Amino acid sequence: MQTGLNMSKSDSGLILSGSRISPREAALIERLKTLKMKSGSHSPSMTSIQEQIPEIEVKIDACFLSNPYATDLFMDFFQREVIATGRFRSLIECYPSQNRVISELLAPCLNTSAENIFIGNGAIEIIQAVVHRFAGKRMLVNLPTFSSYYEFATESMEVMFNVLDKEDNFRLDLQACLKKIRDERIDSVVLINPNNPDGSYLRQKDVRDFVRELKHLKSVIIDESFIHFAAEDDSFELKSTVALVNECPNLAVIKSMSKDFGIAGLRAGYAVMSADRVRALLSNGYLWNSSGLSEYFFRLYVRPDFRAEYEKVRVRYIKETQGFLETLKSIPGMRVYPSQANFVLAELLSGECSDDFVNRLLVTHGVYVRTCSDKIGLKGQFIRVASRNWKENEGIIAGLRYCLEQ
Amino acid sequence: MQTGLNMSKSDSGLILSGSRISPREAALIERLKTLKMKSGSHSPSMTSIQEQIPEIEVKIDACFLSNPYATDLFMDFFQREVIATGRFRSLIECYPSQNRVISELLAPCLNTSAENIFIGNGAIEIIQAVVHRFAGKRMLVNLPTFSSYYEFATESMEVMFNVLDKEDNFRLDLQACLKKIRDERIDSVVLINPNNPDGSYLRQKDVRDFVRELKHLKSVIIDESFIHFAAEDDSFELKSTVALVNECPNLAVIKSMSKDFGIAGLRAGYAVMSADRVRALLSNGYLWNSSGLSEYFFRLYVRPDFRAEYEKVRVRYIKETQGFLETLKSIPGMRVYPSQANFVLAELLSGECSDDFVNRLLVTHGVYVRTCSDKIGLKGQFIRVASRNWKENEGIIAGLRYCLEQ
Repeated sequence: MQTGLNMSKSDSGLILSGSRISPREAALIERLKTLKMKSGSHSPSMTSIQEQIPEIEVKIDACFLSNPYATDLFMDFFQREVIATGRFRSLIECYPSQNRVISELLAPCLNTSAENIFIGNGAIEIIQAVVHRFAGKRMLVNLPTFSSYYEFATESMEVMFNVLDKEDNFRLDLQACLKKIRDERIDSVVLINPNNPDGSYLRQKDVRDFVRELKHLKSVIIDESFIHFAAEDDSFELKSTVALVNECPNLAVIKSMSKDFGIAGLRAGYAVMSADRVRALLSNGYLWNSSGLSEYFFRLYVRPDFRAEYEKVRVRYIKETQGFLETLKSIPGMRVYPSQANFVLAELLSGECSDDFVNRLLVTHGVYVRTCSDKIGLKGQFIRVASRNWKENEGIIAGLRYCLEQ
Repeated sequence: MQTGLNMSKSDSGLILSGSRISPREAALIERLKTLKMKSGSHSPSMTSIQEQIPEIEVKIDACFLSNPYATDLFMDFFQREVIATGRFRSLIECYPSQNRVISELLAPCLNTSAENIFIGNGAIEIIQAVVHRFAGKRMLVNLPTFSSYYEFATESMEVMFNVLDKEDNFRLDLQACLKKIRDERIDSVVLINPNNPDGSYLRQKDVRDFVRELKHLKSVIIDESFIHFAAEDDSFELKSTVALVNECPNLAVIKSMSKDFGIAGLRAGYAVMSADRVRALLSNGYLWNSSGLSEYFFRLYVRPDFRAEYEKVRVRYIKETQGFLETLKSIPGMRVYPSQANFVLAELLSGECSDDFVNRLLVTHGVYVRTCSDKIGLKGQFIRVASRNWKENEGIIAGLRYCLEQ
C-alpha cells in the first residue's frame, strides 16, 4: 500500500467511517478539516498543509492545475538565462517595466494592439478589475464556476446564476442562456471556456456567435485561462476569441498564464479588451503590477525559440491528459464528466462526502485532489482531479482506485 | 574624464548649449528626450534606457531609491536558501499563500494583529486600493509629492494641494495644515514621512499629535516607505505610527519594502489599518496578490537572524547617506534641501533646465539622477539624487561636480 504518512509500521488498520484508516490517520483528517475551515473558498495550499501538518507528506498535488512539462521548460530557460548568469539580482533589485511596456511586447503574439492589452498580476487581478469597473448591475455567471467571479462582485451588483445540469454533462446551452439574458434583463455575462471546475468546452464558432448576439450588454467576460488545453480536432490548434474585441468593445478576454505555463508563483496574466477600458484602468492605477520575474516570463513568452519548445510540451501534455481522462472514466465508483481542460470533475457514487474522501486520499496516499463541496451548484459528492505528469497520473489513478474500492 | 559612452576617442569635444558635449552625445540626448516623453509620469527605467539606447552605459542609477547593502544581504540569503537548494522551482511553480496567511506571519513583528494588516503587491497597489476605497471627496496632498497619490484619485474625488515652501525647506507646518483642513472642508489627507521627493521629516511625536487631531476625517494616509532611513537621534531607532491605528480607525499606514530592503522587483508592501477596512478589501479581491518570491521575502523578513543582519546594514547605510548628503551640500552650483530619506532634492542654481542637466550627466558620466520637471510644485530646476553604495556615491559626486562646474 502506497502511503502519504510518516507512520510506524505497527499502526494497525482499523475500520473508521467505513474505511480502512488508522487512528493516527483519523486524527490527521480532523486536523485537515480544521485547516480547510480556515482557508476560505479556496483549498489550503500544499505549503500550508506541509507547514501546519508536517506529518502528512503530500506526494502529488492534483489540485494544482498546470502543465508540469511547461514548468520544466520554463525552468530550463530560467536556469540558463537567469540563474547561471546572475541576472536574477537585477530582476529582484530593480523596478519592473510598467504595464504598457509589457503590452507592447505581447501585442504581435496576440495579434492585437498594445492599447488593447492589460497586463495583470495574475488573471485574478484582472478579474477583480473588470468585475469592479466594467460589469453592470446584473451579472450572469454559470454554475459551477470559479468562485471569484461572484465573490468579487461589489455591493451594488446582483449576481444571477445559470445552473448547468449535470445530467446534460454541464453543457452550456447557448440559446437558453441568450433567452435568460433577455428575460432577466442581464447586463453582463461571464463565460469560462473550458469551464472551471467541470472542463466543459464550447466550440469557438459557437462562442463567437454568442458574443455577437450580446453587443448590447455592458460587459461580456470570456475567461480563456484553460484554452491552451482544448483541442477541437487532431491539429491541436490554439484557439481564442481575442480577435472579437475589435468588433465587440464590450468584450474582455481574460487569460491566466499560471495554468498552461505552470508558473503560478510568478503571477502573470493578461486581458484583451477595448482600448478605452485599458486606458481607464491605467489612468489611475496598476503602475507596477508586474514583478521582475513575471516580466522575464513575458519577455520569454514572446520569443520564437521558447514558443516552438512550448508548443511541443503543450501538445504532449494534451495527449497524455486525454489518455489520463479516459483511464479515470474506467474507474468504478465515480462518474467522470467530459472535459477539454487539464482536469476533470468527478462525482463519487458511494454517497461519501467529497471532503471526507479528499482527506482520506491525502492521508492514505499523499494524493491531494480538490473537494468541490464549497462550490455553489455542486452538491457534496464532487471532486476535481488535475492531470499532472504521466508518473504522477499513475499515482493518482492508483490512489483513486484504492479509495473508491473501499 | 569618466564617460558613460562607448564613443571613439577621436570624437572631439564641442560646446553645445553651453556645455562641453560632442555631437554624438547631443544626438543621444535627443533620443533620451523622446524616451522620457513616452514614459509618462515616472522616469524611464534603466532597463528601458539600456534596451532602447544601448549606446548609453548607465553606470550608476541614482534615480533608484534603495539600500544596496540590504539587497546584498537579501541576495546572500536567497542564494543560500533558494538558489543553492533548488527551492526556486516551487516558488515559481506553486500558488503563493493568500493575503491573510502572510499577515499572520507579519503581525508579531509589526506589533499589531493580523486582521489589521493588508499585504500588497508593492505599496503602489495599496495606495491605489486605499485611495479608491477609503478616501473621501476632498483629499489633501502636500506638494511636492509622490505623483500616484493624486494620479490615483477617482473621477468623483477632488484633490487639494498644500504647497510646501522651498524657502522653508519644504517643511510641513502642521498647524497651518490643520487650519487648511478645517477651512477647506478636507475629508482625507496624505502624509509621506519622510516626504518624497524632498526628504523632509516630521518627528513622530508631532505626527501622532497631528493624526489625533484628525479623527473626524474619513481617511488619514501616512506613507512610511522611507522611514527606515530616518534617524531622530544617534540611536537610529526605527519609528512608526502603526500603533496609532487602534486609536484612530481612519488611519492607514502604508509601507513599501522596495526601498529599505532593495527588492523593488519582488513587489512587496503592506499597510496597517482598521480590521474593518482590511476585511472590506479582502472580501472581494486581492486573492493571490503576492508572488512566490515576495512570500519568501516576507517569511525572511520576520526571522530574527535576518532582522539582526538587516539592522546592521540599515545603520551602516544611514551613516554613509548622512556623509554623502553633507558632501553634496558642499558642491557649488546647487542648493541641497535637508533630508532624512535616502535621497536629496537639489535645485540647480545655473538656471539650466533639470531635464537637460540629467541627460547631460547621464550621457557624459553614466550617472542617472531623477529630473523633477514633471512633478507638480517643482519648477524646472530640481533634481532628486539617491544615495547608493559608498563607491557609487563617489561617482555621483564626481559627475555632479563636473557637470555643475560647466
